[in-house]
Amino acid sequence: MGSVAERMASKQKEISVSEFFEKNRQILGFDSMTKSLIMGVKEAVDNSLDACEEASVLPEIMVCIEKMDNNEFKVTVEDNGPGIVARQVPNVFGRLLYGSRFHAVRQSRGQQGIGISATVMYGQITTGRPATIKSKTEGGDTAVEMDIMVNTKKNTPGTLRKEFKIWDGKEHGTRIEFYTKGRYVAGRQSVLEYLKQTAIVNPHATLMFIDPDGKRFLFDRVSNELPPPCKEIKPHPLGIELGTLMNMASSTREKSVQGFLTRDFSRISTRVAKDIMERAEISPKARPSSLKLEQSKKLLKAVEKVKIMAPQTDCLSPIGEGLIKKGLKHVLADYRPEFYSPPITRDPKVYGGNPFLVEVGIVYGGDLPKDQPVTILRFANRVPLLYQQGACTITKAIESVDWRRYGLEQRGGKGIPFGPAIVLVHVASTKVPFTSEAKEAVADMEEIRGEIELALRTCGRKLKTHLNKKEKKSKTRAKFEIVRELLPQIAEKSASIVGKEVPPLGKTITKIMNVVWIDDSVEWVDDRHRVNISIYNYTPTGKKFDLHSVVPNGAMLGGFGGIKPKEVRNGGKVTWELKRIPSTEQMEIVYDLMGMSKEEYDDNEVYISGINPVSVIGADPLPGDWDIDDLPVMEEEETEEEQVDDEDEVDYDESGEVLNDE
Amino acid sequence: MGSVAERMASKQKEISVSEFFEKNRQILGFDSMTKSLIMGVKEAVDNSLDACEEASVLPEIMVCIEKMDNNEFKVTVEDNGPGIVARQVPNVFGRLLYGSRFHAVRQSRGQQGIGISATVMYGQITTGRPATIKSKTEGGDTAVEMDIMVNTKKNTPGTLRKEFKIWDGKEHGTRIEFYTKGRYVAGRQSVLEYLKQTAIVNPHATLMFIDPDGKRFLFDRVSNELPPPCKEIKPHPLGIELGTLMNMASSTREKSVQGFLTRDFSRISTRVAKDIMERAEISPKARPSSLKLEQSKKLLKAVEKVKIMAPQTDCLSPIGEGLIKKGLKHVLADYRPEFYSPPITRDPKVYGGNPFLVEVGIVYGGDLPKDQPVTILRFANRVPLLYQQGACTITKAIESVDWRRYGLEQRGGKGIPFGPAIVLVHVASTKVPFTSEAKEAVADMEEIRGEIELALRTCGRKLKTHLNKKEKKSKTRAKFEIVRELLPQIAEKSASIVGKEVPPLGKTITKIMNVVWIDDSVEWVDDRHRVNISIYNYTPTGKKFDLHSVVPNGAMLGGFGGIKPKEVRNGGKVTWELKRIPSTEQMEIVYDLMGMSKEEYDDNEVYISGINPVSVIGADPLPGDWDIDDLPVMEEEETEEEQVDDEDEVDYDESGEVLNDE
Repeated sequence: MGSVAERMASKQKEISVSEFFEKNRQILGFDSMTKSLIMGVKEAVDNSLDACEEASVLPEIMVCIEKMDNNEFKVTVEDNGPGIVARQVPNVFGRLLYGSRFHAVRQSRGQQGIGISATVMYGQITTGRPATIKSKTEGGDTAVEMDIMVNTKKNTPGTLRKEFKIWDGKEHGTRIEFYTKGRYVAGRQSVLEYLKQTAIVNPHATLMFIDPDGKRFLFDRVSNELPPPCKEIKPHPLGIELGTLMNMASSTREKSVQGFLTRDFSRISTRVAKDIMERAEISPKARPSSLKLEQSKKLLKAVEKVKIMAPQTDCLSPIGEGLIKKGLKHVLADYRPEFYSPPITRDPKVYGGNPFLVEVGIVYGGDLPKDQPVTILRFANRVPLLYQQGACTITKAIESVDWRRYGLEQRGGKGIPFGPAIVLVHVASTKVPFTSEAKEAVADMEEIRGEIELALRTCGRKLKTHLNKKEKKSKTRAKFEIVRELLPQIAEKSASIVGKEVPPLGKTITKIMNVVWIDDSVEWVDDRHRVNISIYNYTPTGKKFDLHSVVPNGAMLGGFGGIKPKEVRNGGKVTWELKRIPSTEQMEIVYDLMGMSKEEYDDNEVYISGINPVSVIGADPLPGDWDIDDLPVMEEEETEEEQVDDEDEVDYDESGEVLNDE
Repeated sequence: MGSVAERMASKQKEISVSEFFEKNRQILGFDSMTKSLIMGVKEAVDNSLDACEEASVLPEIMVCIEKMDNNEFKVTVEDNGPGIVARQVPNVFGRLLYGSRFHAVRQSRGQQGIGISATVMYGQITTGRPATIKSKTEGGDTAVEMDIMVNTKKNTPGTLRKEFKIWDGKEHGTRIEFYTKGRYVAGRQSVLEYLKQTAIVNPHATLMFIDPDGKRFLFDRVSNELPPPCKEIKPHPLGIELGTLMNMASSTREKSVQGFLTRDFSRISTRVAKDIMERAEISPKARPSSLKLEQSKKLLKAVEKVKIMAPQTDCLSPIGEGLIKKGLKHVLADYRPEFYSPPITRDPKVYGGNPFLVEVGIVYGGDLPKDQPVTILRFANRVPLLYQQGACTITKAIESVDWRRYGLEQRGGKGIPFGPAIVLVHVASTKVPFTSEAKEAVADMEEIRGEIELALRTCGRKLKTHLNKKEKKSKTRAKFEIVRELLPQIAEKSASIVGKEVPPLGKTITKIMNVVWIDDSVEWVDDRHRVNISIYNYTPTGKKFDLHSVVPNGAMLGGFGGIKPKEVRNGGKVTWELKRIPSTEQMEIVYDLMGMSKEEYDDNEVYISGINPVSVIGADPLPGDWDIDDLPVMEEEETEEEQVDDEDEVDYDESGEVLNDE
């Protein structure tokens, strides 16, 4: 038996990280030929986008896939980024766990230093060929070109060839060419779909693609503005683990605990640092490396009790509500959806010391399939997630919302709902917690799932409001049509029986209907949006009220037809005073909105005031304040649970500091 | 811009693997407090089970969890395995990617050399404390005891304390004690559930558990036989990638390609090697290291064209159909399920050169919840998988089967079915392709999912047969009850109206029913199974036929009551000749089965012959051959597609070699 332990000991040895991933390549996402091809493209494109943004260059990326024999493909990805200096090329492409963004607390697509070298390794495993890298940095005369392989036993790069070459017409940029086993497919999980979804969430990038048949696709940028640069920040003290704190304390360059707290963390001022040390009974002059286990524990407890400002948010780069809608419309035009719920970008929150934020959009109706689960579009740091939907906290959040309350079908109020809808969710963070190195699914963190659920519910309520209005209209319309068709017939019949003349029916119809009916529509005419609003008075008496319409941000009003408005508020709303609409009569309002692209606007928001809203179909009562985004939504089933959820957010006091419970 | 490239270059650096996992601990499964506690226990117990089996020791493992203050727990896991030699203790527990089983082609729980050191690392990150290891190998006088930490910046172990101690009453074994942040919960994802499920699939292990309240649980072994040792094999040539082949060729100790092929791979004989080299136009004396890319490609193509035996199967350790049923009954007794489908252990297959096999069992009815998705129990190499159900190919296989055909509810014939059922799936392989280092889900490999689907369908058909029988019986019973209740009333009424006597009704009832009704039951009496079979003749004429009952493997017959059997076949079936059952009369058969534990048996299998099966309720016709396991199942909806699936298996010729399509 002792010999068993000895025998086992002789076998125990170190495993190189590339050896590990060579054997477990499915962890990196290389688990089928189809997926491997997509992964390779994705890693290269994600790196290009990161590099361009870091250098403040509007990205221009070319992807080309050529079919070789025997399930082999040649993939080329070229960008206009800053290039990579020659001495780092082998490490970046030929060594796993090597990169520039791992230690930075900042939002970026790549972070692990695994993706692109794993792509090179998978290519060489399956085809026996090296990857070829060409790179030029600005101001250099020549580009460097190298053939790179990964030595998997040692996880070191091997450079098979290195040449300096002229790169005509290229000021700076990087090109990678690799061969890989793969399968090229169309459909929901494909290179084209990845690029399409990438274009949705990166409206500032131009992507070109040449598929294996030589067919060309161009996703041109729709915005010339780079997303604001994501700043790099220090770790936030809330959520730091004890052991991590102790590690940081023992390796800091700071000589005092006070310096350590204020300079190695974000959001700790000298005042706050002093407060923390006092509570933890640690002298400000104490050396960080001398902190004992018990002292570190006290320090952490003190951090939890002291008011500390929430983390900066300029390290995050949301897509933004406007661009999400634009992106969705761009891609989904073919389905002619009836409703785009206004997207939600939530305020940044923190999990385990890492800032993150959540964005959600919902699209409904049109030609979207009715009897299938809703389509889920998942994104993390502007990268589409095509695989592992079932493992993702985004999916779990969607499954845990009771969508029956928002008008979708869902068995038992759990699981993915059914219906003609698309749900888009974007999670942005300085550190997205992926479930594996393949970065296909976001791990199930309570804080993140909670934020997604809140955003989904808000979007869900807007969907419900839309569906309610639609249902109300359609019910009233049905009633209206019956009345209009039947009543004249009955009248005629009765008249002929009693031998009298057919009486005028207008008043009778209004008596039965008893509603003010408002119809509105938006057309695209002469490069502008033309809004038509019709108001019918189907009540027995004359009506007088105010009608309000919301002017979207950045739009200019003009070309009023019909009744002129009483008041126009800048960046807010237009109000018409409808002085008197006699019973059975109607009025028309027309105006234009300029300065928006066609996709940016399609759904007019109309409100009323000065009339009992119960007798109006087609417009909601004007909310008390003018902040349209915070419109209180009336819903019968609002439960206490949900209200608690909404209150579950962090409180800030006036100075912007987080208030913690003592 | 050039400076951007330079600035980025200065930041590019190597990331240590432990640093990577410290930051991305969710990849290792440490993503919530609840899960982290379970992960820690799991890694320690899996290692203990592997070590015991490798040393051919029946495992005896003690797990103890104590609650400290502030969400801290102390976890102790002690085994009776072979122990670990002192010099290797720091590496095994304090270094990620260090282990003995990584390079072995053999089925084992641990393989990566990550799990237990990750547990130590997570403990130190969250509590600041080292892990304490005590280990004794056989024949040694003392045990070694060490305090170990992981230096995450370098991925090297730190030994804080090393002492030699007497370990009273312990011949050999290992104990690990660590502190960790965590949350202790009950329920479906809990330490107790993990241990319970581990007991199901490791019937040879004894597990003791002391929970934080001091409550003790004992899962005693139900079998004293160790699973047959899993042999270590060489890689199988089918499915080897080109690059991997080239790597192996350049680092082999063999001097000739022939020696390389025959000795570095399994299942390549000298004859086969020669055939391969001839087809690839490579000289047998060629040095493996001299193989060029094109030659290697030809070699691989030749491998695909030559007949090569399927991989050995003694490297795999299935649980076995008998033990699966036993295990399920043990755990599920409380639900009193009405049906345990006979489990299926499929023959081994290969994916990417790795042998694997699949086992499936289904449990139905009783008190299992009716209006919920079925419960899925997933296992890989005898380890329960509690998390990431949605990411697992097991789940995907279950979702892609049309369960409506097998009597479960399922919207659109896709997704997890609803109904009172539990589906157990075990995947065993020399290399289970997990989706991440946390080993929570099996990656979606086509070959594996296909095998699971086939096994699920086979089990599904058995379930359907059971449900059909049940439905048929219940319909007939309903009819029967109506007839028995109504007929006498009608007869009485009619008789009183016409003033005659009530006629005898037996014959009329049999005319309406016109079936032979067979009821059977199994009781546990005096430490044996007593089988009762009642045969009622509800037809208008006398019946004569043979009745057969299956004797399970390992059971002894005895204590016949009622009619004596005509024939008893060893290890097969008992036959009774029912010479004549007059119309409206009944017969009884009673016998005992000895030598099985109570859980092993509950569902009798009764067949009939010599009578039109259409007129018999409660027994199926005896199949032509006696191989009960291969009973042809009659099913109307069997589609062509499914038959193709079943034929999709690898063909072997008589010599046991795989036949490949040329």
